[in-house]
Amino acid sequence: MIILVKKNAEKRQVDNLLAWLKAHKIDPHVSVGAQETLIGCVGDVSHLDIDLVSALDVVESVQRIQDPFKAANRKFHPEDTIVDCSGPTIGGGHFLVIAGPCSVESEEQVIGIAKAVKAAGATLLRGGAFKPRTSPYSFQGLGAEGLKMLIAAKRETGLPIVTELMNSAHLDLFNDVDVIQIGARNMQNFDLLKEVGHHTRKPILLKRGLSGTLQELLMSAEYIMASGNPNVMLCERGIRTFETATRNTIDLTVVPILHRLTHLPVVVDPSHATGVAKLVHPVAAAATAIGADALIIEVHNDPPHAKCDGAQSQTPEMFAETMELVRKLRPLAIR
Amino acid sequence: MIILVKKNAEKRQVDNLLAWLKAHKIDPHVSVGAQETLIGCVGDVSHLDIDLVSALDVVESVQRIQDPFKAANRKFHPEDTIVDCSGPTIGGGHFLVIAGPCSVESEEQVIGIAKAVKAAGATLLRGGAFKPRTSPYSFQGLGAEGLKMLIAAKRETGLPIVTELMNSAHLDLFNDVDVIQIGARNMQNFDLLKEVGHHTRKPILLKRGLSGTLQELLMSAEYIMASGNPNVMLCERGIRTFETATRNTIDLTVVPILHRLTHLPVVVDPSHATGVAKLVHPVAAAATAIGADALIIEVHNDPPHAKCDGAQSQTPEMFAETMELVRKLRPLAIR
Amino acid sequence: MIILVKKNAEKRQVDNLLAWLKAHKIDPHVSVGAQETLIGCVGDVSHLDIDLVSALDVVESVQRIQDPFKAANRKFHPEDTIVDCSGPTIGGGHFLVIAGPCSVESEEQVIGIAKAVKAAGATLLRGGAFKPRTSPYSFQGLGAEGLKMLIAAKRETGLPIVTELMNSAHLDLFNDVDVIQIGARNMQNFDLLKEVGHHTRKPILLKRGLSGTLQELLMSAEYIMASGNPNVMLCERGIRTFETATRNTIDLTVVPILHRLTHLPVVVDPSHATGVAKLVHPVAAAATAIGADALIIEVHNDPPHAKCDGAQSQTPEMFAETMELVRKLRPLAIR
Amino acid sequence: MIILVKKNAEKRQVDNLLAWLKAHKIDPHVSVGAQETLIGCVGDVSHLDIDLVSALDVVESVQRIQDPFKAANRKFHPEDTIVDCSGPTIGGGHFLVIAGPCSVESEEQVIGIAKAVKAAGATLLRGGAFKPRTSPYSFQGLGAEGLKMLIAAKRETGLPIVTELMNSAHLDLFNDVDVIQIGARNMQNFDLLKEVGHHTRKPILLKRGLSGTLQELLMSAEYIMASGNPNVMLCERGIRTFETATRNTIDLTVVPILHRLTHLPVVVDPSHATGVAKLVHPVAAAATAIGADALIIEVHNDPPHAKCDGAQSQTPEMFAETMELVRKLRPLAIR
Repeated sequence: MIILVKKNAEKRQVDNLLAWLKAHKIDPHVSVGAQETLIGCVGDVSHLDIDLVSALDVVESVQRIQDPFKAANRKFHPEDTIVDCSGPTIGGGHFLVIAGPCSVESEEQVIGIAKAVKAAGATLLRGGAFKPRTSPYSFQGLGAEGLKMLIAAKRETGLPIVTELMNSAHLDLFNDVDVIQIGARNMQNFDLLKEVGHHTRKPILLKRGLSGTLQELLMSAEYIMASGNPNVMLCERGIRTFETATRNTIDLTVVPILHRLTHLPVVVDPSHATGVAKLVHPVAAAATAIGADALIIEVHNDPPHAKCDGAQSQTPEMFAETMELVRKLRPLAIR
Repeated sequence: MIILVKKNAEKRQVDNLLAWLKAHKIDPHVSVGAQETLIGCVGDVSHLDIDLVSALDVVESVQRIQDPFKAANRKFHPEDTIVDCSGPTIGGGHFLVIAGPCSVESEEQVIGIAKAVKAAGATLLRGGAFKPRTSPYSFQGLGAEGLKMLIAAKRETGLPIVTELMNSAHLDLFNDVDVIQIGARNMQNFDLLKEVGHHTRKPILLKRGLSGTLQELLMSAEYIMASGNPNVMLCERGIRTFETATRNTIDLTVVPILHRLTHLPVVVDPSHATGVAKLVHPVAAAATAIGADALIIEVHNDPPHAKCDGAQSQTPEMFAETMELVRKLRPLAIR
Repeated sequence: MIILVKKNAEKRQVDNLLAWLKAHKIDPHVSVGAQETLIGCVGDVSHLDIDLVSALDVVESVQRIQDPFKAANRKFHPEDTIVDCSGPTIGGGHFLVIAGPCSVESEEQVIGIAKAVKAAGATLLRGGAFKPRTSPYSFQGLGAEGLKMLIAAKRETGLPIVTELMNSAHLDLFNDVDVIQIGARNMQNFDLLKEVGHHTRKPILLKRGLSGTLQELLMSAEYIMASGNPNVMLCERGIRTFETATRNTIDLTVVPILHRLTHLPVVVDPSHATGVAKLVHPVAAAATAIGADALIIEVHNDPPHAKCDGAQSQTPEMFAETMELVRKLRPLAIR
Repeated sequence: MIILVKKNAEKRQVDNLLAWLKAHKIDPHVSVGAQETLIGCVGDVSHLDIDLVSALDVVESVQRIQDPFKAANRKFHPEDTIVDCSGPTIGGGHFLVIAGPCSVESEEQVIGIAKAVKAAGATLLRGGAFKPRTSPYSFQGLGAEGLKMLIAAKRETGLPIVTELMNSAHLDLFNDVDVIQIGARNMQNFDLLKEVGHHTRKPILLKRGLSGTLQELLMSAEYIMASGNPNVMLCERGIRTFETATRNTIDLTVVPILHRLTHLPVVVDPSHATGVAKLVHPVAAAATAIGADALIIEVHNDPPHAKCDGAQSQTPEMFAETMELVRKLRPLAIR
């Protein structure tokens, strides 16, 4: 942490500040120049509220120089984390493709799609049972019944399953779920993050919020890890910007940036990023080339009649074509 | 809903589309021009997924023309909603000031601040017991103990209290709370919204999320109202943009816009919007002038030692000055 | 400037870095901690490219601690700048209202509006002759003819005139113009900024770009001032964000922030900020309360037939009402 | 264009509106429903100001349904435009790589880099002579002298050259330049766009502004084309968002979207998008995979001593590695 002292500060005030820092177990180094005085604070300052320091009368500005995340930080954990998703693994060079319908609609539907995506090469099945919808009047998912249908599809195909948890009260229903998804709107639902840290060691697929910075995404992963669950994968699915030509704006540069900042695997979701089925294929190609550790793609047997997100769902045929391209690109992908 | 048909669509395809619309109980009107064909769908289309229609092969684009919110919509409920906050009221010309510490730190602290803000003219006391913090390593609030201290301050001063609910499992602890706050990060925690709709009729102070559009804020209010609780106030607290000179960007134009769109009262939070104590006073003045129905302001007896948000907390003296200006501005405020 | 050295840096590398800094006439102070090494560089570093330093192999990160703007900086020029607009003045407590049509359409029109806004209390007349339009197919303004009509209106009413310069080749035509506007889209047209710095001392009304940070706005003012023209006023007119409920998002907090950072006067443009005539009145009230040094408002005698921006133009009657409220609010405005 | 009429509109008002539309040569179709009345306007409405229609008293809202761009629109020009850059071509399956220093520093430097990038496979040489810099105190480029050095490098290596034009007064100096770049900050400098449309048929590399929507980018291309120059390439270089982990946020989805909307070729600039040399390689890979028609990459022989943008410049070695990967990815790229 660096403190820039106000130009007109008196020596007495600066001495008080130094004493205050030492009282907080911080080791300050003072650099006096013609125009300004700097105080460099080396050592761990994560217990200090940086905004508070900047509000002190004698302080012109303060800047953090250390990352506030630890468990997720590659500096302290240089090796890639490899997460076991009930068989298939992700991270450290292991690549996954997760596919399935936005929402589970019937046992027949989800089993049909599961077979199709497995045939095309998917290694996990996704499907929503509890659905976060902007409108209370939209289809909210089949809930516990939907979970049962997903589990039936798992039994039928052997594909491990990924589904979203919206409420920690539902955690008991998730015993047969392999990977728990925390949705973008819940990225900073800190109570939910703590619960999936405390009560399970199942892999958590943590989606970036619509206005979540990478640092906030990592701090949310930190909540889960600090609560006891180290099996976290981060998922980029686009952020909200002024551009309305796509549903969200997806900056694939986050893949190499996250790989530098953290040892956790990085998943890309081309379906939610674009909101348009025809754009899923090219974005999946780019995400693969830039080194994503997994893709998660919405596939529906009959998109025009899907109960949600039909517009962004690939058909099984489109998905098979995407898988074929992804397989060719993987050997060239950035590592 | 307006559907623009693709230029090269065949008559058969258009007929199929019309049949499909009628099957969904929609009454389509066709306008054929030299360059394009439009289908205007009058009547209620809220049961249709607009993204899905736009994914149909024959469709070039679709646009919604009706608001998706109903209970909160001023069109269907022209009179201002007046919410009773255990005595003080808000909306329809009634103005409130809510003040208190970011987080409850001790009974003595919160009672001291409560007396000070009451003396200055505040009509409700705010204070955080359960705190949403970006870092798991930051102070998370005193929880149930903090609630008891707040309630002691209410007993001592007679001020009704406002505090944040982060987890519906805590709802039982909120019996003596007068107004329940749903924080910005939980604006789209739909399960929580449903719970405070179903299980209570206490007023809900719903904060706009960092990337929440006004329409999404209204849809979140709609979740609460559709679940049975009509007592909702909307709170503008700044959104996230590219500008870093303030913590958030607060567009006060939302006050007159929301007053046009909805009958619900609108609260402005200058403390979170700016993140800087010295900016709270001018923003409170502007918010009052533009017609906010209430202000919510963080006040702390000793900001440099506050356990959270010290940087944005006014002292009681600053708050008294702000109240004095607000009282003078109120007669000139936009109605 | 603060340099954080990489954890695994060798002493030799750090010594090289220190030598490199000294060669660039920078005085480095080293603070060595258990976890990291900091180098504080006090003194003027404005000649160094900070991105370049951060690209050096041994450097983990670099942070600037000084403002890059000088002539516009209140630290070096504590007194408010008062700009003389051919009679009316702005800054240091002097308040202006600039009003008139988006574009000049005829001599009769602009004289009529000029008389109306003068009667209501406006102190300067605005009007566009050269118009920046998103579409090449939209009305582009009357150009030199429009300027003549504006000048006729000035002669008729005595109101000094403000109009936009889009091309330095037109500067000769601006001899009788009192205040030159640089539009939002040209905020970083650095050649144009240099020209209005070199070739004139007329006041410059510099509009903030749609994605301009406050620091960039100040750096653009710096271009004009460093080129020889100190008479600059800054104009907030809304920025571009994800919210589409208004044309732009206007954060009025920039008024007190700019007053702290710079001695230049600050103008607010409620017309472009909102894009909607009915919102101009409330935003003008809030801007006045928060301490703007001037307002600039579009007024048209017949908005439905205006050749541009009819949707956001007040009628003379609406403008008179706004002026009345502004006059009442001024004594209460933030200083 | 679709007009939604206000609920309480009287028949007389609607009739007036219909007459007004017909007077503007528009053919309105009325659809009356229980809840609302719609007017569908088929035919060309590009001469009408849509904001103005929405400001009419009887109008609830208006929505455009047609693209406002024509010359650049793929609907009216289905074939890919192929632009000849003095030998190398771009578009319609032809792929280019443009490389070179941010700014020209000396003849020796630019010739050295030109040889290196040519050896690695670049087909055009870029280099800045006139430089847009945020600060007036930063290096502003060598100007006309820099242009001569670039031309010397062209003579020496045979590589056609690309350089930025900031001021139409400099156009005479650009006779030996092969491709003229319009920078991001000048994307809406409409006078400059008209000049490069009127006075030259040289290819124009038009960069997207920091807050430019895709539609605005296309409208700016339209300015050039409508002024007489059809040889335009669009360049995505990242937009400004809340995320600060990269300099800009680059949404590569714009490549397939632009390919659908327009017949013009699309260039991607990984250097400005990321601002970090180490991220250029992965972003170049993703841009190639998703189907960009060209890459433009900054290369410098000695980045730590570059006069500008050293932080984002690849060394010739890094560039050669990127070229190798790009060559492997091209056969798999999205078409």
